[in-house]
Amino acid sequence: MTDEPPTTAQEACFEAGVKFGSLYHQFAGTPVSPESAASLASAIEESIENQPACRDVTVDIREEVLAEACETDHGYVEFTGRFADVEVTIVHDGVEVIARMAMDDGYPLMRVESVDET
Amino acid sequence: MTDEPPTTAQEACFEAGVKFGSLYHQFAGTPVSPESAASLASAIEESIENQPACRDVTVDIREEVLAEACETDHGYVEFTGRFADVEVTIVHDGVEVIARMAMDDGYPLMRVESVDET
Amino acid sequence: MTDEPPTTAQEACFEAGVKFGSLYHQFAGTPVSPESAASLASAIEESIENQPACRDVTVDIREEVLAEACETDHGYVEFTGRFADVEVTIVHDGVEVIARMAMDDGYPLMRVESVDET
Amino acid sequence: MTDEPPTTAQEACFEAGVKFGSLYHQFAGTPVSPESAASLASAIEESIENQPACRDVTVDIREEVLAEACETDHGYVEFTGRFADVEVTIVHDGVEVIARMAMDDGYPLMRVESVDET
Repeated sequence: MTDEPPTTAQEACFEAGVKFGSLYHQFAGTPVSPESAASLASAIEESIENQPACRDVTVDIREEVLAEACETDHGYVEFTGRFADVEVTIVHDGVEVIARMAMDDGYPLMRVESVDET
Repeated sequence: MTDEPPTTAQEACFEAGVKFGSLYHQFAGTPVSPESAASLASAIEESIENQPACRDVTVDIREEVLAEACETDHGYVEFTGRFADVEVTIVHDGVEVIARMAMDDGYPLMRVESVDET
Repeated sequence: MTDEPPTTAQEACFEAGVKFGSLYHQFAGTPVSPESAASLASAIEESIENQPACRDVTVDIREEVLAEACETDHGYVEFTGRFADVEVTIVHDGVEVIARMAMDDGYPLMRVESVDET
Repeated sequence: MTDEPPTTAQEACFEAGVKFGSLYHQFAGTPVSPESAASLASAIEESIENQPACRDVTVDIREEVLAEACETDHGYVEFTGRFADVEVTIVHDGVEVIARMAMDDGYPLMRVESVDET
């Protein structure tokens, strides 16, 4: 039996994951257009920053991709990962974790960027 | 057999219902606090206004109810119908429908307020 | 001033709209594959049937479209309107409304099929 | 500068967090009653198991709590953390992480239970 309880840094990474899963599945499917993208980005940032251990959330709308998608559809699309890059900063018991979501081969890849335990 | 296709006014009422179901189930569960309520309200309004036939959406946060709920919880709550009154105006083929969501006996009741076919 | 309160049939159409907006925005974004599609369809049907005035919900997964999409992605996709046809039956104060969602020119069109006031 | 890239075990904990955030914010708000709870639990389990690195998801509905809530409301409630205990098992590059969501002082606490790097 080698199961161990998590370290503080592992807990901080778990918290970072919770934030990404939350923001993605709370807001995926929201109708979005170039005109409404800024308010959606602000709402995502401020709502997830309410969650425990979440110091900062930054949502960068990929405006060209969004504008192009809205031209060929009905003036708006459903929000999904290909329309935004997201960075989350977690601080949990002195450990800082930075995590990102960005497109990778057509898929919105979420990953931990760095862990700072000092 | 007395099934009839819908009238234009009935279609407009259907569209109003779609908007309420959409906004409620898209945004219910979003972490919200007194500090982040304004950005959430804006995002709800602007996103749903993207949908077809939707002229206007107004979200009024019930600030006292929200503030009180956030005191006794972890500084934020999950968004649900008791934290906002919502009004939607639909214009579909010349028919204007106004619909509202407001608390009724502890339940967020959605209903059509008026239909103007002139 | 020609605003009128809604008729019973208009209210029934509003209720039908609420169900479509609800089911679409509650479940859009759910990870789905050919293997998990049946459980998602059942959950959509049974959850929305809980709502007032909702007699029946039928979700037909478009299995070929889903299978093809999952081949070219990571074995699953996010649920959206192009993967299902949906029919909802509302009974409200003696009026029966049947409404449908189906693809129309690449867009999941929701519309009232019939209104039976007898 | 002491930022480090994540270890494999930290990545596995991040993945576990993503699954919890996803399932919570995808399904919170779903109408649920004692009759429809089993299909919702199955849909949550099977949909999240589609996600990368996710070996197993178990959703245990808290049936008594749900039944009691549905008595005093309109026969159904909106799904939220107090109606289910959830366990997720992640396997990522040979590391197994078990994480749980359970009620803690009235709040659905998500946490890592164990990390096995052998």
